[in-house]
This record gives sequence, C-alpha cells and structure tokens, in this order.
Amino acid sequence: MDAAILAIGSEMLTPQRVDTNSLYMTDHLNARGVEVLFKMVVGDQRDHLVQAMQYALDRVDLLFVSGGLGPTEDDLTRDAVALLCQRPLVFSNEICGWIEERFARMKRTMAEVNKRQAYVVEGAQVLPNDRGTAPGQWVEHEGRHIVLLPGPPHELKAMFEGQILPKLDGLLPKQVIRTRFYRVAGMGESDLDQLIAPVYNKYTNPATTILAAAGDIQIHLRARCKTEAEAEALLVEVGDPIADLLGDRIYSRNGDSLEATVGAMLRERGMTIAVAESCTGGMLGQKITSVAGSSDYFAGGYLTYTYAAKEALLGIDGELLRTEKAVSEPVAKAMAEAARRLAGASIGVSVTGVAGPGQGDETAPVGTIYVGVAVDGECKVRHVQFAGDRHRIRTLACQIAMDAVRRVMLKG
Amino acid sequence: MDAAILAIGSEMLTPQRVDTNSLYMTDHLNARGVEVLFKMVVGDQRDHLVQAMQYALDRVDLLFVSGGLGPTEDDLTRDAVALLCQRPLVFSNEICGWIEERFARMKRTMAEVNKRQAYVVEGAQVLPNDRGTAPGQWVEHEGRHIVLLPGPPHELKAMFEGQILPKLDGLLPKQVIRTRFYRVAGMGESDLDQLIAPVYNKYTNPATTILAAAGDIQIHLRARCKTEAEAEALLVEVGDPIADLLGDRIYSRNGDSLEATVGAMLRERGMTIAVAESCTGGMLGQKITSVAGSSDYFAGGYLTYTYAAKEALLGIDGELLRTEKAVSEPVAKAMAEAARRLAGASIGVSVTGVAGPGQGDETAPVGTIYVGVAVDGECKVRHVQFAGDRHRIRTLACQIAMDAVRRVMLKG
Repeated sequence: MDAAILAIGSEMLTPQRVDTNSLYMTDHLNARGVEVLFKMVVGDQRDHLVQAMQYALDRVDLLFVSGGLGPTEDDLTRDAVALLCQRPLVFSNEICGWIEERFARMKRTMAEVNKRQAYVVEGAQVLPNDRGTAPGQWVEHEGRHIVLLPGPPHELKAMFEGQILPKLDGLLPKQVIRTRFYRVAGMGESDLDQLIAPVYNKYTNPATTILAAAGDIQIHLRARCKTEAEAEALLVEVGDPIADLLGDRIYSRNGDSLEATVGAMLRERGMTIAVAESCTGGMLGQKITSVAGSSDYFAGGYLTYTYAAKEALLGIDGELLRTEKAVSEPVAKAMAEAARRLAGASIGVSVTGVAGPGQGDETAPVGTIYVGVAVDGECKVRHVQFAGDRHRIRTLACQIAMDAVRRVMLKG
Repeated sequence: MDAAILAIGSEMLTPQRVDTNSLYMTDHLNARGVEVLFKMVVGDQRDHLVQAMQYALDRVDLLFVSGGLGPTEDDLTRDAVALLCQRPLVFSNEICGWIEERFARMKRTMAEVNKRQAYVVEGAQVLPNDRGTAPGQWVEHEGRHIVLLPGPPHELKAMFEGQILPKLDGLLPKQVIRTRFYRVAGMGESDLDQLIAPVYNKYTNPATTILAAAGDIQIHLRARCKTEAEAEALLVEVGDPIADLLGDRIYSRNGDSLEATVGAMLRERGMTIAVAESCTGGMLGQKITSVAGSSDYFAGGYLTYTYAAKEALLGIDGELLRTEKAVSEPVAKAMAEAARRLAGASIGVSVTGVAGPGQGDETAPVGTIYVGVAVDGECKVRHVQFAGDRHRIRTLACQIAMDAVRRVMLKG
C-alpha cells in the first residue's frame, strides 16, 4: 500500500510554518512498509482541497489529511471530502454531546460555531479526539481510504497512535522490515555514489536512501520481506559489499553523529581531548560538547583567531607565525601540540584555515584548511581545500578535524 | 501572479527532512505580493515528477522546483521537465566547462557522472551556480514559468537572490513595497506579542510578521502601496509606537544578527572581546566569529568545561570552585575577568551553567545560567533560568551573553 499526506491550512503556506505532522506519520508508516509517495500543503480553499484530494486518490490507496477540522468558516476539510465523495454531511448528536461535555469540563459554554465540528461525511467512521474538540474521520471511497486528522500535533499524534495504527495494521499484509545504517565522513556525495551505486542500483529491495549534509553522508538500507531471515539475507547481500567498499570511512552503524562516535571512542580508551581553533572560532568545541556527558573527555580549548591570540594563549612562536603564516602545516602542528600540553590532554586537535569570504591569498586561498592531531609526541597534519561559503567551510573543517581524531584513535 | 513550490527528492519524503527552501522562497515571494497556492514534495520517480509539475502548471503561473539537479541517476528533474514540455535535453559545453573548473579549483577531477549536470532543457535560460555544480534553469512553457533550482539551501538562496528575484521583478506589476525590521533580544514571544499586538492588530497594511527563534525575535512590517510616501507613512504610523514600546530591547533595525550588531559596536569603539565558556563549550566563540572580519575584535577564547580546565586554562582558584561550585556568580565573575586579562581584551564575557540533560541539582537546576561581563575593572553578572533541551539552553545562554555585552557598551 502507498500513501500520500495532505496538510491543510493557509497558515501552513506562510514562511513561518512547516508541516511536522507528516514527518511523524511518515516515520510510523515507513516502519510498517507503507511508502509516502508525495506530500502536499494546500490553503483553505474548497476547490483546491477537492482537487488535491482527487489527485492523491488517483495515485495512492491511503490519504492522510491533517487540519481544516476546526469550527470556523475556514475549516473546509469536511465539506471538501463530502464534495469529493458525493455524499452528504450528517449531523451527529453524539459528537455534539462530546464537544459540549468538553466545554463543560473547562467550565465554558460551547459556542454555536462548534456545532460545525459535529458534521460527519455519511458512512465515515468517527474517531474520537480526547485532546481537542475536532473528531477525526475514516472515510472509505472507491476502495481507497481517506483519513481525516486534527492539525494540532498533540491531538493528531494521540489519535494516530491510539486509533489509526491499530486499524492500519489490520489492513496491511503481514511483513518484516529490517534496516541498516551507515554514516560516512571525509567523502563527497558524488564520489560516494559513484563508488557504491553499482552495488545498490541492482536492488529495489532493500531500498537504499542517501542523505548528504556538509562532510557527513548517511546511507540507509531498508529490506521488506515475509520473514526475518529473508530480510536479513538481503541486508547482508547489499549492505556487506557497500561496507567493504567504504571501509573505515564508515564512522557509525547505529546512527550516532561523528561527535558522539569520537566521544565514545575517547571514553572507551580513557583519553581526553583539547582543541585549538583558529578559523572555526569555537565551532569544533561546540560540536564536541554538544554531546551530553562530554565533560568526561573534553579537557578544554583555545580560540585563537588572530596572530596575537596564537602567541598569547597558546605561546606559538611569533617568528614561526611570521615566516610560515598562520594557515600552514607548521602552525597547525604547533597549535595542536600546545593545546595538548597546556590543557594536559591525551590528544590535541587544531584547525587553522581561511573560511572567507575575504582574506585568501595565493598560498592559502579561501577554503584552505589545515588540521593537526597531536598525540604521544607525534603530530599529523592534514591539508584540504574546500569550496563554499563561510559557514560551510567551517562546518567541513570541523568534520575533517573530528574524522582525523577518529582515524588516529583507530590506528591505535 | 500565483505560485506553487515543488521540492524533489526521495530524501525529502523521509521522517528526517523538511523542505525549508519553500519557507525561504515563500518569504521573498510574499514580499512581492506573489501568493503560494500550494506546495508539494515528490520523490525521485520520473512519472510522479511529470504529473506533479503538470498539476501545478494547470493552476499557477510560476512553478519553483528545488532539487533533483544532482549528478546521480536519481536526479530526474531535468528529464521530467523535458518530458513535460516535449523538448529535448541539450548538452552544454559551457556548463560542462564551469563544472570542470570548479573541480579543478578544489584540485579534483570531475567524475564522469557530473556531465549529466550539463544538460539543459532546450530553450531554457541557464542560471549559473557559483556555490555548487548544478546550474539552475528558467523554462517558459505555454505562458507559464518553470524555475529549476538546486536543492542545497546555500546554493538555492544565492541563486534565488542573485538571479531569480531580479528576473521576477521584471515580470510583476509595479508596486511599492517598504519594510521595517526590528530584532529583539531578551524577551519571550508571548510577552512580546502581548506588548505590541494592540498596536499592529488594527492594521492589515502594513502586514506584521513575528518570527521567534531561541532568544531572538524578529518583527517584520511590510507596507504595499501605490506610492512611496503612502508606504512610508503607514510604517511610521505602526512602526514608531512598536519601537517606543520595545525601547533598547531592539538591538537591530537592519536585520543584522546579534553577533553582527555586537561586532559592529566593538569595532566602532575600537574595543576587543575575549570569551570564557563552560556549558556552551565554544558556541559563543563560534557565533562571534561567524561574522566575517571578526578577527578585528575577537581577542580569543577559553573553553573550560570542567573544573580542571577552569583551573588550568584560566587560573581560577580551586578553592573558589569547590566552595562556590562552578555554576555560580563568583565563578562567572572570575572567568570573565581571567579571559579579559589573559587575552588582553577590553571586554571579557563568560558563560557558566547547566545545559542538561543530567547533572542539575537544587542550587543549580538544569537551565541555570550565569553570564559575566568584565570591563575596566568592573564585572556585572546576570543570572537567568531557562527551560528546554541542551541545544536550546546553550543557544539561549549565548544570546543572553551577547545581549549583556551589548548593554554594557550601550551604557558607555
């Protein structure tokens, strides 16, 4: 079975609002093997609603509609479904009673407009709402299912979990779903895809999804089968060759972020880390400490954005800075070693580079990054060249720095 | 003119992703009087793409399509538009050259798959992409406009502002739009709304939009009139009373972020700043240095997340830490003063607190934040209590710290 999700309400078309209900529903639907083929957001106009619903029902078996069930004239979902199905709306004394009771519990009188919420598409199953006044409705139409849900997330979620999912489980064929998850650092999306596409392209089951952010790619495999053994076998068949191709570029198989992975490795080894940041100005420390409990291994950091700060805070030799320039291998090395020594950490990691937009030159154009990792009297420096705006370059620099720390720990 | 927005990519149909490009585009379109009638998100399937585009073009004049312009086999936007318009795709040597140059600048060789990105729908206007490999395309079809944009937000935004909006302005009827913009720190959204709603509620023109992020509220007034004088008069009528009510809680009237405002004030006064961060672990430094040119006034920073780091890096008295605890007024003061002295800065600012989720106690529950600002032998400490998750508490702490610095400078 395939699904579509329709969010209704002109407020959902403003620059301030995103439809998060669809994320929640998608999560539960995918877990049951129901794919969401498309999503739509439509304003409070009856004709648009009818047309959007018709478009969806021509293509999917299950249509989830959120919003537009309130008491005002703008709430047109009920009317639109009635029009679409060519059925009348029927007044329900029972629903009207529920709404009146709800108002009474809040010591208020029900406004006349609330009676609108007691109208039901003829033949629909009514879904009581214990968190609001708008009941949901489940309408069957020409072999398809239209499920009407209230817009407020806390009302929708309670109804979805309590009433929709149990009913859905009765409709769906029995199946097993198993997933695998890889997160990869230090590779661009197109390089990665060129490497692994020949493996996953041959299969539609498991389904492969690739999610790319700056310096961080997620690969998601999902197998849907009749038995657990079949699903696991498919994951082995496709997942293992992908993992072999990527090797130690895979930093996580459980969904953990790079900072959480590096943190867990440090804790496991009883090691601590100190940072010396130039162009990232605190972003690396912020990422490392975004993990709860990072005080166990974060020994401290130095933000030395200027030549003067590199001298004053880290004691970097002024002569070295002038001859080599701040964006250079020797300075990256000196920064990492100084951070390690001064903070008394097992590992010192440094980032120095040109984040832009200005101030690049021939030897160090915008996007030049040097990352140093000092451990046990040894220091490795990596030099990379990134493209993008200031934020992207800084983000990529932090990813490469954390990945360099991970690789040093991997090698012992 | 009405518009629709179509986001393309199976990853946009996962529970992890929301289409934020549409919010950004809606904001700019609304500002020009273009309404977005509906939005759709469709996966990487050619037929679905063609059908969704056809649905949109049957109803609106302007269709903005984001995503699906990448180099992989899943990137089908170009093919779908060609099918829809019944036009061939034409290989562009010029675009191929741009992509090769881009790879060369990053010292990499262009992968063969990237040639896919050099195909253009016949007759389309090519929109160069200076932040990525995928160029955009503007296609006119049966009197309607289909605008193809890259999916990554930083690429889309640059192209939209630099190329789409100027072209759009040429298509739209002449009208005058004037805006006012206030950014406010140190107030919650509902308190702010209660204060100023009685002023703006009476007007639909100018339209008032309030955008609330953690510790940062934006108020946007937009007047649309036939003449500049009318528009300006409306902004005075509504904007001035709002500004009077908010007073010095307004930190910016030109849209600048708090970090940019504080940076400009420091530069104006020839002052420098140093940070000492505990629970924010680098986030404050990262924000201050997110502003290009911040090396002019950022004297450096110390990330002292643990007791040991506070002693080793800042020389905070161990006895003080043990008797007062790290999350306290005296320690915030000592940290701010030490950062100022050690980095040789005009101002030292410190943040110490409990970001959670664990480790709060009775005297310092989760969300407790102390911010110290040391300047000229004086140090002011502010104590606040926030609610929310770790990221939100850290973000709020940075905002309050920067606002405290701003207020100290305002007072002389």
